[in-house]
Amino acid sequence: MKIKYTLIHQDKKTKARYGTLATNYGTFETPMFMPVGTQATVKTLDTDEVKEIKAGVILANTYHLWLRPGEDIVSKAGGLHKFMNYDGPILTDSGGFQVFSLASPKDISEEGVTFKNHLNGDKLLLTPEKSIMIQNKLDSDIAMSFDECPPASANYEYMKKSIERTLRWAKRGKKVHSNENQSLFGIIQGGAYEDLRKYSATETVKMDFDGYSIGGVANDNESKEDMYLAIDYSIPYIPSDKPRYLMGVGEPEDLFEGVERGIDMFDCVLPTRLARHGHAFTKNGKINLRNAKYKEDFTPVEEGCDCKCCQHYTKAYIRHLLVADETLGQRLLSIHNLRFLIRLMEEMRIAIKEDRFTELKEEFYKNYQKRK
Amino acid sequence: MKIKYTLIHQDKKTKARYGTLATNYGTFETPMFMPVGTQATVKTLDTDEVKEIKAGVILANTYHLWLRPGEDIVSKAGGLHKFMNYDGPILTDSGGFQVFSLASPKDISEEGVTFKNHLNGDKLLLTPEKSIMIQNKLDSDIAMSFDECPPASANYEYMKKSIERTLRWAKRGKKVHSNENQSLFGIIQGGAYEDLRKYSATETVKMDFDGYSIGGVANDNESKEDMYLAIDYSIPYIPSDKPRYLMGVGEPEDLFEGVERGIDMFDCVLPTRLARHGHAFTKNGKINLRNAKYKEDFTPVEEGCDCKCCQHYTKAYIRHLLVADETLGQRLLSIHNLRFLIRLMEEMRIAIKEDRFTELKEEFYKNYQKRK
Repeated sequence: MKIKYTLIHQDKKTKARYGTLATNYGTFETPMFMPVGTQATVKTLDTDEVKEIKAGVILANTYHLWLRPGEDIVSKAGGLHKFMNYDGPILTDSGGFQVFSLASPKDISEEGVTFKNHLNGDKLLLTPEKSIMIQNKLDSDIAMSFDECPPASANYEYMKKSIERTLRWAKRGKKVHSNENQSLFGIIQGGAYEDLRKYSATETVKMDFDGYSIGGVANDNESKEDMYLAIDYSIPYIPSDKPRYLMGVGEPEDLFEGVERGIDMFDCVLPTRLARHGHAFTKNGKINLRNAKYKEDFTPVEEGCDCKCCQHYTKAYIRHLLVADETLGQRLLSIHNLRFLIRLMEEMRIAIKEDRFTELKEEFYKNYQKRK
Repeated sequence: MKIKYTLIHQDKKTKARYGTLATNYGTFETPMFMPVGTQATVKTLDTDEVKEIKAGVILANTYHLWLRPGEDIVSKAGGLHKFMNYDGPILTDSGGFQVFSLASPKDISEEGVTFKNHLNGDKLLLTPEKSIMIQNKLDSDIAMSFDECPPASANYEYMKKSIERTLRWAKRGKKVHSNENQSLFGIIQGGAYEDLRKYSATETVKMDFDGYSIGGVANDNESKEDMYLAIDYSIPYIPSDKPRYLMGVGEPEDLFEGVERGIDMFDCVLPTRLARHGHAFTKNGKINLRNAKYKEDFTPVEEGCDCKCCQHYTKAYIRHLLVADETLGQRLLSIHNLRFLIRLMEEMRIAIKEDRFTELKEEFYKNYQKRK
């Protein structure tokens, strides 16, 4: 069965929308934040904990799983769900972003991308067909088309050529896609160029994918303004009965801005990466638990949070674990940070249903210290 | 309330005994293996998992907690149970073993031991009084007397002088012990010298502790034969209504040998340390999950094991996690290895109650590949 998106309620004042996405492994509500399980594990969590934080869907990385343990082993295990013991929905990316960000040097041709395996230096070629065939074997619920991720600094001419190629790649990938239980998303690129986003969106939608992703907004040197423009320029051309996924975005303020503009799905390594560095999300902004001021702070990371970390452990204890290099500290903060974003999306969904998304966003910004 | 040991059944053919130990944080059955939570956390596990593996009691290290976060912070948190969110029984060691094994160089005098803090090089003095006062503040259920841990190679003359001093230290520690909810154990030393073990045991028992530990058997260069002799030479002089704890021992075969000789409690970092290196206990001996032969082995680490690792995950997946350096792999193996030893003790307790401890031991040795 393919996924089925149902639009349930559209916020009166914004483009924010509440819906559900049905998959073979359960239905989740949108907008939703997806924890990233790069190597078939959400870093430091087990799958019971992934359930406890109420993750509706998780993401796994095709590039990493292709290299290690290899898609054939995952397939022999019975697919990604069985391999990692997770019976909820799983989305895989195409490997494109990793090929461009992790592997180097690379050579982009019409055929695909030649690059060096970041683990052992072997020369490898990833093509649109290969990406889809790997994802077919991984047996995720939702697969992504293979796209080029041009740098934010790419000029108009390069960007135009790049999206043309990405469209041809999308077509080639769709042609070989053969897993009937897996849905396939097309990816819209085009930087912050209005006409290129429109062109990329229109042409991708013509191919009739099961959902649409907006890519090229999560590069390190991308400005927030360009990200918001990229969404604004793409959304009008995506049919409202299909889910929209903003790739690689996870700052709380960007979730608000994305949802307001009509995005349904987000993913980002930020919550778990921050946690591994001892940082926690709170309603007032991020805090660094290694800070000496938490030495004797016997309160939870965030009062009122329903996660295991906040229900059972104190800032002083977590600081001790971090300073003493005990992995439980990173785990508890990963659980908190993921739950923080997932709860934020829960609040947004309720607000959308009650037509007060704008009020929730204003309330949130009153307290939250944005990233500079 | 102090602890209360109840001897329930003595095996007909051996000195193995089944009993219970009541503490302010619950009663556990003996013989029991104690997971080690050095820095107020059983490495990689949270306290729910410590409960799930049915740990009757856990151990925390006074030396480490004294240096980091400091006993005052633990005390302000409301004691070790509250600090680490664990409401089961906790035993603390005296710091003696760590001062002798981790810190260097050290200077042993009548007053105590001067050594360099292994974290920052500061010169510190640990005395019998200081050790007890730290443990009083940590508020564990069971505290240990501060003892010297002479190397296995110590000659008779040195060993004799050392146990005389350890007896004087035990007296000094007992004098300042002031936590009414905490029980205090005396420690028997004396290497593999029969008369010194007898002397140390007899004199320690005269001081009337709440329980007795047998120390000096877990040094790296200690032979197994010497360990078994140390137990045999000590046990006859310990009153049968008090618990007996063999310090730092955790190889499955040593648990059998210890229980057979009348030991009630054991602790060891081995199960968690092995796990962090990718090794797992099984009924057939230890296996290395990093081995390529497990690449496509979709069976659990041990068939029939009731732990989370074996119930939900496969060898192939755990191997992938280890190779990909994902901490979940170490956690799942830590859970398995601890549960393996705790289950082994459960089996021993049942066998003792049915007067077939010897048969269980023989059965175990048929399959298990001992450490060379």
